[in-house]
Amino acid sequence: MTIITLSSDFGADGYFVGVMHGVIASLAPIARIIDLCHTIRPYGRLQAARLISANYHYFPAGSIHVIVVDPGVGSERNVILLEADGHYFLAPDNGILSQIAAKPKSRVWVIDRPELYLKPLSQTFHGRDIFAPLAAHLALGETPKNMASQVNLEDLIRLDAPQPQLDYESQQISGAVIDIDHFGNIITNISRQLVRTFFADTADRAMIIDINGRQLQGIASYYNEKAVGLAVALYNSEDLLEIAINQGRACDFLQVKSDTRIIIRAEVSS
Amino acid sequence: MTIITLSSDFGADGYFVGVMHGVIASLAPIARIIDLCHTIRPYGRLQAARLISANYHYFPAGSIHVIVVDPGVGSERNVILLEADGHYFLAPDNGILSQIAAKPKSRVWVIDRPELYLKPLSQTFHGRDIFAPLAAHLALGETPKNMASQVNLEDLIRLDAPQPQLDYESQQISGAVIDIDHFGNIITNISRQLVRTFFADTADRAMIIDINGRQLQGIASYYNEKAVGLAVALYNSEDLLEIAINQGRACDFLQVKSDTRIIIRAEVSS
Amino acid sequence: MTIITLSSDFGADGYFVGVMHGVIASLAPIARIIDLCHTIRPYGRLQAARLISANYHYFPAGSIHVIVVDPGVGSERNVILLEADGHYFLAPDNGILSQIAAKPKSRVWVIDRPELYLKPLSQTFHGRDIFAPLAAHLALGETPKNMASQVNLEDLIRLDAPQPQLDYESQQISGAVIDIDHFGNIITNISRQLVRTFFADTADRAMIIDINGRQLQGIASYYNEKAVGLAVALYNSEDLLEIAINQGRACDFLQVKSDTRIIIRAEVSS
Repeated sequence: MTIITLSSDFGADGYFVGVMHGVIASLAPIARIIDLCHTIRPYGRLQAARLISANYHYFPAGSIHVIVVDPGVGSERNVILLEADGHYFLAPDNGILSQIAAKPKSRVWVIDRPELYLKPLSQTFHGRDIFAPLAAHLALGETPKNMASQVNLEDLIRLDAPQPQLDYESQQISGAVIDIDHFGNIITNISRQLVRTFFADTADRAMIIDINGRQLQGIASYYNEKAVGLAVALYNSEDLLEIAINQGRACDFLQVKSDTRIIIRAEVSS
Repeated sequence: MTIITLSSDFGADGYFVGVMHGVIASLAPIARIIDLCHTIRPYGRLQAARLISANYHYFPAGSIHVIVVDPGVGSERNVILLEADGHYFLAPDNGILSQIAAKPKSRVWVIDRPELYLKPLSQTFHGRDIFAPLAAHLALGETPKNMASQVNLEDLIRLDAPQPQLDYESQQISGAVIDIDHFGNIITNISRQLVRTFFADTADRAMIIDINGRQLQGIASYYNEKAVGLAVALYNSEDLLEIAINQGRACDFLQVKSDTRIIIRAEVSS
Repeated sequence: MTIITLSSDFGADGYFVGVMHGVIASLAPIARIIDLCHTIRPYGRLQAARLISANYHYFPAGSIHVIVVDPGVGSERNVILLEADGHYFLAPDNGILSQIAAKPKSRVWVIDRPELYLKPLSQTFHGRDIFAPLAAHLALGETPKNMASQVNLEDLIRLDAPQPQLDYESQQISGAVIDIDHFGNIITNISRQLVRTFFADTADRAMIIDINGRQLQGIASYYNEKAVGLAVALYNSEDLLEIAINQGRACDFLQVKSDTRIIIRAEVSS
């Protein structure tokens, strides 16, 4: 039994996802469909890229991951099929898969079998008319080369996430807010690995985080290390620096905006 | 394996849907349950009717479609079973199924087997106590005539969607907003077919759409035909006239209200 | 086929739930996963306790119910496995399972097999790293005693829901608002059984409900007993006193706050 995961910016409202399930179940009854995430911000390609990169490996090898964040739906943009790390990925060619495509031994194809699409083909809902049937045919055992033409990785649209700024002179890293989760926690683009590398041997408790004029001392291991209502910095389940309030909403309390910067530096020992 | 689809106005929050899954899985473990849409507006019978009419055929023949939008729950209203176009439909008799019931060769029954309901039977949650067990029994192979009494189509409550107004004198169609989707796109009740019929040979690019004092020239094929941030009119995946903003929220920008009218007319060649 | 139900405060947004599905499907492909409810208020242990107590029995005996409402994630709190009434329950030891654990013949274990957890183990997302694999192993037939150490019920953290106040002198019950549902209906902690016991033979129609300065006369059987737009009190599908507005939003109209009290008393016959 093959697993097909679905991710999109279709939202928790609406019927788009349900209809995709219907199309897949009609063509490939044997496939098991799992909704990974449908609340990617509308047109949020960077968020989609991060979501799928960070989470595909929690599914069995051989899974087919469909990601429909597709502002160019209906235009001439390509639909691509990527095989990487033992998984398959179907998405518009708009950079969502750049990061995964860079893995060793990955192979990529551009779909060129319009006869696999639903008829009549709409120009506004390719999740239903193109992606769902492609995933179903793949789950049924259709081979990539029968559905698509192999292309070079360099031919794909590339999408690069903004990286934190490393300031060697003042010895600090300046990062961005890349997400606010359901609990109001603030997710940054500063990874544990980057901090460890940049600050060498500095202990977590000696790190200082600045955000909107407030300072947090130390990086905790879990939310409850601080009292309820207090702000806490930690590395989250994606190993990204996160700022939370124990049982509160950090995004509201710290008045985070999309351009808020987070600075991390080491305590100066005196 | 039979598919049961569930649609309701129960929302993306709450446990009502999960419990319906439980009841069905307890009675008919073999049935596959797919959530079509649970974000129909509360008590939105017209929206429910449109949803199921437009989308049931994306599921395999033999599927059982349960639609629980039921402001009369607990009162004397009937529960009906409809067989049409090779699919089964279960809903309160409140007009949701009017349109599908009008298909040729459709047959309709009123449920009269209270012993199939859960005990104790609540008077506020028939999705759990009546609809879920009925769908399960149907999936297990119970025949309609063993669950229900056949009635005439004319005996059903009828629900008619407001139709666009055709103004032959000023040569224009005036339609209504029937939905705002997750992206803020404005869905109207003006279908591609109606426009084609009314305006005969007029090309899409020669159509003019008026909405809240703004004019859009031409009907595009896809969102990205206009630059990001510009308004675009097109026929959506249901072949209804839709007004969108490429990667923006048309409903906010155009300040659409529930009584906003959309006028479509042909450009006057001078 | 074993059913695993998932409940949490992860919200309808986000990817946390999808990833838990992936982990379970990877380890125990044969298990069937049903989402019971993921919109428990963040950190809402009382709401989680009520949800699972009221609804687990709608699933088949042998089901495994996972409830992740876990403000103490990453700290030293225990993870417990409860067997009660033929069902299994996995949750943090924070009182969510107190009520079900009190059932006769229930047995409880504290998990002590960290080798079953995902590696690397995060300290912020135990739904993925601990609860999902535990549920999967249980579904695969692992026995509780191989996963955990049996403990006494008295050793568990206990959580007691605030009870309505019984005023014998003025002959009234004063209850609290414990939930607002998707339709804006106001759910109280006053049960049908409590009212029946306290007010002995008083008929439903002779009861008077006070809420925010308004009085409702009588307890109805269903919403539609009152005209559209009118307030109605009834016992809901959990047999709790609920105040609704037929096809309206009672919580808005009655300006309910978290500390709003609902008083129920019997009409004084004159």
